[in-house]
Amino acid sequence: MAQTIRQIAEALGAEAEGALDLEIEGLAEPAAAGPRDLALAMADEYLAGLGQGRARAAVLAPGTDWRAQGLEAAIFVGRARYAMAGLTAALDPGPEIAPGIHPSAIIDAAAQIGAGAAIGPFVVIGRGAVIGPNARIASHVSIAEEAQIGAEALVMQGARIGARVVIGDRVILHPGAVIGGDGLSFVTPEKSTVEQVRESMGQVQAANQSWTRIHSLGSVRIGDDVEIGSNAAIDRGTIRDTVIGNGCKIDNLVHLAHNVVTGDHCLFAAQVGIAGSTTLGDRVVCGGQVGIADNLSVGSDVVAGGGTKILSNVPAGRAVLGYPAVKMETHVETYKALRRLPRLAATVAAMQKSVSNPGSND
Amino acid sequence: MAQTIRQIAEALGAEAEGALDLEIEGLAEPAAAGPRDLALAMADEYLAGLGQGRARAAVLAPGTDWRAQGLEAAIFVGRARYAMAGLTAALDPGPEIAPGIHPSAIIDAAAQIGAGAAIGPFVVIGRGAVIGPNARIASHVSIAEEAQIGAEALVMQGARIGARVVIGDRVILHPGAVIGGDGLSFVTPEKSTVEQVRESMGQVQAANQSWTRIHSLGSVRIGDDVEIGSNAAIDRGTIRDTVIGNGCKIDNLVHLAHNVVTGDHCLFAAQVGIAGSTTLGDRVVCGGQVGIADNLSVGSDVVAGGGTKILSNVPAGRAVLGYPAVKMETHVETYKALRRLPRLAATVAAMQKSVSNPGSND
Amino acid sequence: MAQTIRQIAEALGAEAEGALDLEIEGLAEPAAAGPRDLALAMADEYLAGLGQGRARAAVLAPGTDWRAQGLEAAIFVGRARYAMAGLTAALDPGPEIAPGIHPSAIIDAAAQIGAGAAIGPFVVIGRGAVIGPNARIASHVSIAEEAQIGAEALVMQGARIGARVVIGDRVILHPGAVIGGDGLSFVTPEKSTVEQVRESMGQVQAANQSWTRIHSLGSVRIGDDVEIGSNAAIDRGTIRDTVIGNGCKIDNLVHLAHNVVTGDHCLFAAQVGIAGSTTLGDRVVCGGQVGIADNLSVGSDVVAGGGTKILSNVPAGRAVLGYPAVKMETHVETYKALRRLPRLAATVAAMQKSVSNPGSND
Repeated sequence: MAQTIRQIAEALGAEAEGALDLEIEGLAEPAAAGPRDLALAMADEYLAGLGQGRARAAVLAPGTDWRAQGLEAAIFVGRARYAMAGLTAALDPGPEIAPGIHPSAIIDAAAQIGAGAAIGPFVVIGRGAVIGPNARIASHVSIAEEAQIGAEALVMQGARIGARVVIGDRVILHPGAVIGGDGLSFVTPEKSTVEQVRESMGQVQAANQSWTRIHSLGSVRIGDDVEIGSNAAIDRGTIRDTVIGNGCKIDNLVHLAHNVVTGDHCLFAAQVGIAGSTTLGDRVVCGGQVGIADNLSVGSDVVAGGGTKILSNVPAGRAVLGYPAVKMETHVETYKALRRLPRLAATVAAMQKSVSNPGSND
Repeated sequence: MAQTIRQIAEALGAEAEGALDLEIEGLAEPAAAGPRDLALAMADEYLAGLGQGRARAAVLAPGTDWRAQGLEAAIFVGRARYAMAGLTAALDPGPEIAPGIHPSAIIDAAAQIGAGAAIGPFVVIGRGAVIGPNARIASHVSIAEEAQIGAEALVMQGARIGARVVIGDRVILHPGAVIGGDGLSFVTPEKSTVEQVRESMGQVQAANQSWTRIHSLGSVRIGDDVEIGSNAAIDRGTIRDTVIGNGCKIDNLVHLAHNVVTGDHCLFAAQVGIAGSTTLGDRVVCGGQVGIADNLSVGSDVVAGGGTKILSNVPAGRAVLGYPAVKMETHVETYKALRRLPRLAATVAAMQKSVSNPGSND
Repeated sequence: MAQTIRQIAEALGAEAEGALDLEIEGLAEPAAAGPRDLALAMADEYLAGLGQGRARAAVLAPGTDWRAQGLEAAIFVGRARYAMAGLTAALDPGPEIAPGIHPSAIIDAAAQIGAGAAIGPFVVIGRGAVIGPNARIASHVSIAEEAQIGAEALVMQGARIGARVVIGDRVILHPGAVIGGDGLSFVTPEKSTVEQVRESMGQVQAANQSWTRIHSLGSVRIGDDVEIGSNAAIDRGTIRDTVIGNGCKIDNLVHLAHNVVTGDHCLFAAQVGIAGSTTLGDRVVCGGQVGIADNLSVGSDVVAGGGTKILSNVPAGRAVLGYPAVKMETHVETYKALRRLPRLAATVAAMQKSVSNPGSND
């Protein structure tokens, strides 16, 4: 996997100087870098580490004097974080999934496997499933009847893809992700306690009823270039499909309920949960452990800070925080006032005393 | 899977009119319905969509003039949401799990497989396990020694059932659900920091101790008609069993800790977490991401709104919300006051000025 | 698995009296104990239960008169909870994983399997992986290329271990745990909405950008004696490794993001989430559903109560609670004031009236 400075710079579209044929095997923080590592020192505070490590080449901010750092070669990048995308892509060996179909895989005769697809050990593929060209399916994955997976998709170990799920091109599913479990959709013959609470918020009248299942007849449709984290769970829709737009990035242990529809390029950090039938616009960002209640509408470009619980609709472009979610600025103002509340209460108590005893002098 | 209007109406116990022999293959929202779909138009606002779609038959509220909607047949239902249970059940093809035992399954000679049970590829069943009649076990499932699974249970791909777990009839486990992992139960030789904090809430004295494991000797008992979501995790008990009552419905990524005991017909939305040794009554409903601390008692018919963190006992029939959980009405009242707090602080500051300078006129 | 009172007492290092050769098969609460159970009655309130059950022997607090309780033998222990560790260890049969390598396992020719290791059905082990001596690997586990697993490790069903992950001795991974999924690390060409919000907290300008992937080149290093719960997910680092210290105990459905570093002997209850590049000291304890934001530092011996969301650095030895996390005492004080806030608002309103109408008498 060794690459030259020249190759890496070309992959990044970046300038390079010095020994362009120097071979690189990995990336490293400057102080930890060995002689075959490319040191990451795009900010001035990392330059000092170069002396502690053994890097012969580094990635630097434009204009840095690489010779003065004792280096033999340098690559120059502007937006450092963005450069990381290209640098890591250039040096990622990727998972080892042997080409071809492993003999232990059980593939229904009526499934279609695209040209160049790799299928790992103990994979099960059901009737009528379609696997796109050059898709890579790691061990222990199950792909149920009539599911479709796009070209160059990467499905990691033990991911579960349910019946009739449709997944786009270049999608990555991490280990244990479950796409197309049934929605949690139950109903009682008479009004349930939940319905009572939504009307009155008061004491609940026990109904002594059991839950009857509403089956999930819809499926899940996932766009292109989506990534879904380890052990995440995305449920199928009730009548229509649950839909994940193109380019969405979804982290570990996220739950998306039945009938959720997201726009394109949303990003959900770990343990986010979005309840049934809620609709999101494009580029919505949710920090870790955000929750969004059911049947809501969240506009494009909304950013919800970590731990936020969204209990009502949010207009486009708003930054929100808190439980319940409010504008981020409002949350901070309220929170500051809350921190001063014990003192405020003491002030009021003193004033009350002074008002009721205006002549006293304590 | 096509069914006639007559068959569907009979399954629902509902009235139907018109072309009762019309064949239906699926359900659809009115505007999206094709000629072989049954359109769902139980509320007046959906009637308009019938003109946009191509449905020849619909489910309608009693008394709706179906001929005026251009339909050839109609089924009439009262409580629309409840009717969805029967409608979706009638048209759900269910997962394809081939009858019989797949030759790749590894079943211990001392396991018992009930009549009519279907066992999928790569399933592992341990010594002394008992699989009920007509149970369906999808691919990649593991069922450990002496576990029992009831009649007509449905266990989806990659679910994990631990040793000695007992599961009732008609239970559904979704992909990746883990029943019977060990509880998180650890102890230090001397008082731990957690024990210190429970006593004093103050600064912690470092103890420099390591955690010693309390093994989980109990198992998990799950009643009849329970449903457990994708990647949920239910731990075994320490001495006695963790117990899930009949008819409970548990969503994706829910965690139930060791020794938890629930009554019947509870419903837990996604990502709920219930800590060790907490006991719940019947029909408790928890919204998404609710947390309940350990060793608590939560009465029957309690409803906890999404995101609520229950840190103390809750009496039966109470609706609660917030962190920490309080009566839902109290939470709303407090929250309203909190929103007005910055203004209140300003008022007090002005009054303070006016009281201390009663003659000033600013 | 039967053991004598003598054997159990010796394993505990505890005193025993009476019929030391009495055989015991399990532990039980006093009222539920059968004649071959050892009843757990270390606190006085449990003694009454001995009369209802059929135990012939019990574990008791020092000095308890066992003959008066109608017992034939007794074991005496000091710290009752700590004794539970030894008692349950003595009577745990452990999971049944047959010795040797199951013929269905697929093990790369270039993997090394330690002496005495047990490998279950349908396990997949990749190129260059190293399995320690006496490790036990249950069914359906996948261990990717160049991963290392220490001596006497126990890996339960369907756990996923990614490429180059290094796991110490005596580690326990529960079913479905995923170690070494990729981190959620994405960047946009220009400043993203998240970066905007971190600067201004205000309205977001839509950027209409898509996310570019930063690949995860690091791996995960896990110390000795670590336990990781069912369906937990621990991501690999970006450049350096994600690191879990020795003796950490991690519960079900916990998420640890890329580059997280923990000290030794931390304990994270279920559904905890720790965001990218956050560093924790030793013995940090997080209650259930705690969240910690990215790039923070949390000192040794910090205790965070259930549901706490840590949004800024926390010094060593502090007990914290709330969203956002504050000192536990501050949280309680603030919370009490909040409960009285509606009354405070009414008081201020009345005072305001009285101040502006000092002569009125209502």
